[in-house]
Amino acid sequence: MATAPQTNGSRRKRNRDEELLDAAVRLFHEKGYPASSMKDVAEAVGVLKGSLYHYISSKEDLLFRILQESHQQASEIVDEVSGLPGPAVGRLRAFVERMYLWYLDHSERVGLYFNQQQYLTGDNKKAMVAQARDLGMAVRRLLTEAKREGSLDPRLDVKLSAFFLMGALNSIPMWYMETGSYSREQIAELFTRMSMSAFACQEDTVDTTAPDLSR
Amino acid sequence: MATAPQTNGSRRKRNRDEELLDAAVRLFHEKGYPASSMKDVAEAVGVLKGSLYHYISSKEDLLFRILQESHQQASEIVDEVSGLPGPAVGRLRAFVERMYLWYLDHSERVGLYFNQQQYLTGDNKKAMVAQARDLGMAVRRLLTEAKREGSLDPRLDVKLSAFFLMGALNSIPMWYMETGSYSREQIAELFTRMSMSAFACQEDTVDTTAPDLSR
Repeated sequence: MATAPQTNGSRRKRNRDEELLDAAVRLFHEKGYPASSMKDVAEAVGVLKGSLYHYISSKEDLLFRILQESHQQASEIVDEVSGLPGPAVGRLRAFVERMYLWYLDHSERVGLYFNQQQYLTGDNKKAMVAQARDLGMAVRRLLTEAKREGSLDPRLDVKLSAFFLMGALNSIPMWYMETGSYSREQIAELFTRMSMSAFACQEDTVDTTAPDLSR
Repeated sequence: MATAPQTNGSRRKRNRDEELLDAAVRLFHEKGYPASSMKDVAEAVGVLKGSLYHYISSKEDLLFRILQESHQQASEIVDEVSGLPGPAVGRLRAFVERMYLWYLDHSERVGLYFNQQQYLTGDNKKAMVAQARDLGMAVRRLLTEAKREGSLDPRLDVKLSAFFLMGALNSIPMWYMETGSYSREQIAELFTRMSMSAFACQEDTVDTTAPDLSR
């Protein structure tokens, strides 16, 4: 992956940043944000408490940066799929599949996003709300384009469909631990197929007059 | 609705119980369970703090009873649809639609279920986990029967499909405030159609080679 040239020092700081965020994700996930102290964070990363302030200004800053990074990565997925050639429904499908894979790979982070985001305050909270709105709008754009080219159910409601998709994604942390032997690729494939069927098919064609074999 | 005969006294107690639970739902929703005191609860219901102990033994007891009641109502929906005549896919559809309507009517309660359930301890926690498992199994039964009669995508994975459905339902509190002018019936209808399409249709039939009109 191409990155901007950087000194050894700045690269070292970047790695340290990532270690710090990863350790905080695990800690907040296990102990919860309110119950975790800066001392706990320092211990989890293996540094003295005072050293933490080279990297972050407060515990809330740490939570904000974790959630911010998740948004950043979702935005990158939007940008990547937006550049794909071919029909709009293919871009929508690619977005859905990549998002599922990302969420499955980062279920602890996604869980924090929903359980602990409430602890952000002031500008941090505002920034997070604005970023969530941007992502929601990007999802609606993908749905709108696929609908316009005639690939989706013509009665599809773009706004509610975006909520439906994000709902299925956001629920991953609730059940991911119970999936047992499925690989993340299998789950992503099955969920992508269900999501795309939800948007593209018309259930009314299902024959509900079939005989009831359960009686 | 038929109810067991009861004295005026027991009816009064039942109404009082319901008022108490409703007030606690609003309080916990606004202030969060950890930050709400028994004094807050008493004020919200309009009784003296001491009187609360006629109805509940502790704050956790109150949270447990709120969540317990939600489960109870979901179980009633399962029982109702299980008795419906006709094909299994019709029972599945009725379950999905009634659940959406119930969740839309009780989004604060559903929100508590996901944000505050973590505060239950010991036997309360165990009971809640067991009830969630029962509901999950009931959903799988409905899916299995509809699949067996040939009404669903033959490749449908029952376990993951149940997670998918519960995920869409459980996300309602996250976005319900943003839906604006849609009625609950409209939302339930659109979400039911998307869910049933997700289970019954086969996305592969969608023509992804359609010309890309967005270019």
